Amino acid sequence: MAELSVRSVLVTGANRGLGLGFVQHFLRMPKPPQWIFATCRDPKGQRAQLQCVGPAEVANPTSIKEAAAKVREHLGDSGLNLLINNAGMVRSKMLDAETLEDMTETYMTNTVGPLLMGQAFLPLLKKAAAMVNISSIGGSIASLFAWDIMQVTSYRCSKAALNMLSKCQSLAYKEHGILCVALHPGWVQTDLGATAGHVPPVTVDGSVKGMLKVLSSLSEKDTGAFLDWEGKVIPW
Amino acid sequence: MAELSVRSVLVTGANRGLGLGFVQHFLRMPKPPQWIFATCRDPKGQRAQLQCVGPAEVANPTSIKEAAAKVREHLGDSGLNLLINNAGMVRSKMLDAETLEDMTETYMTNTVGPLLMGQAFLPLLKKAAAMVNISSIGGSIASLFAWDIMQVTSYRCSKAALNMLSKCQSLAYKEHGILCVALHPGWVQTDLGATAGHVPPVTVDGSVKGMLKVLSSLSEKDTGAFLDWEGKVIPW
Repeated sequence: MAELSVRSVLVTGANRGLGLGFVQHFLRMPKPPQWIFATCRDPKGQRAQLQCVGPAEVANPTSIKEAAAKVREHLGDSGLNLLINNAGMVRSKMLDAETLEDMTETYMTNTVGPLLMGQAFLPLLKKAAAMVNISSIGGSIASLFAWDIMQVTSYRCSKAALNMLSKCQSLAYKEHGILCVALHPGWVQTDLGATAGHVPPVTVDGSVKGMLKVLSSLSEKDTGAFLDWEGKVIPW
Repeated sequence: MAELSVRSVLVTGANRGLGLGFVQHFLRMPKPPQWIFATCRDPKGQRAQLQCVGPAEVANPTSIKEAAAKVREHLGDSGLNLLINNAGMVRSKMLDAETLEDMTETYMTNTVGPLLMGQAFLPLLKKAAAMVNISSIGGSIASLFAWDIMQVTSYRCSKAALNMLSKCQSLAYKEHGILCVALHPGWVQTDLGATAGHVPPVTVDGSVKGMLKVLSSLSEKDTGAFLDWEGKVIPW
């Protein structure tokens, strides 16, 4: 297995769960990235297990622009190699209990956030850089994975929309030589993964290792794909 | 062709375009529905070509609940046979010009509206009733239809999410005997269809007739499908 080697990476939602797992994995690498930027909504929050480099409320355009400016100060002309749009949320609800607020807040974090991150960081992303949107098999309309134990319609809608966004980004950013993919991390042992009250089968470490292995194997032709942490294609 | 026969129908976004086309078609039927409820956001608006029975701002829960209460007053126990979630919007934008507001406003109208309509009108929808979400091939992640001439990412994301919503509604409302489908009306000669500055190939009348013919041919097993105005399955 060729380990993914990047000079600079930014991870959103990095204070816990998968985001924290990514950062810890990068730090433990024999040859870690020179720059690891970790952002989260509330760097001083009680549940934060990492002091984030910079705050970024992914549904707040101003916060994102400020984060991009800070990252630019550090990187200068060398650019960012990998952007991991990991920040996400879910509200455990039945279809009939979903509200306007559930729908829009989940959409802002899970879908609009990655759009705004892509726009703000595009000038920093160099040729051969990659943009990864952490999606979910929950966003697969074809599979409706685990509907019986968690309806989470606002989450499913936001992730289906995120998959569409990834496809749009892959086409729009192709001319810049930027690879865009949507990844399903598996059903992972995080706060989000435990929403349905079940113990998820995949560890954070296993998920992160798997996704980085998948990333290291991708080429231009894979841009726009929707893959799981083991590299399997997921139907839309 | 067996013409669809319904006792009562409600159409959102009925002041112009496809919604108006539906209402006109129902009124011209040899045996028209006993009740045709037409709602629109701004019944007195300049572009309205129909005085709507009741206003319904589909992204406004209170407005929707008021409309449902009014419809119930008229129908009593007889119930509503067909709900057509037709209200929709698009903003003609390139990916890089999309904003938080474009994304959320389009999502509220195109995706959250049909969710709230379904919730509010569920008690009125009887067994064998149908709920139709007017979607778009623009929401097909697999096809990315006409990307080169219109990126409209906020629209595409909202319609991919609407397709997911339709699938969720089809599963949640199956026990109530309600058929839920997402329909692509074709690229229709309406204000919305003319967004890209092209003349769309499908007339309003042809689209409406086609969709009603498709609806008349559907049975329980088709719930959750994504079909075009000619009955062809569209990939997610």
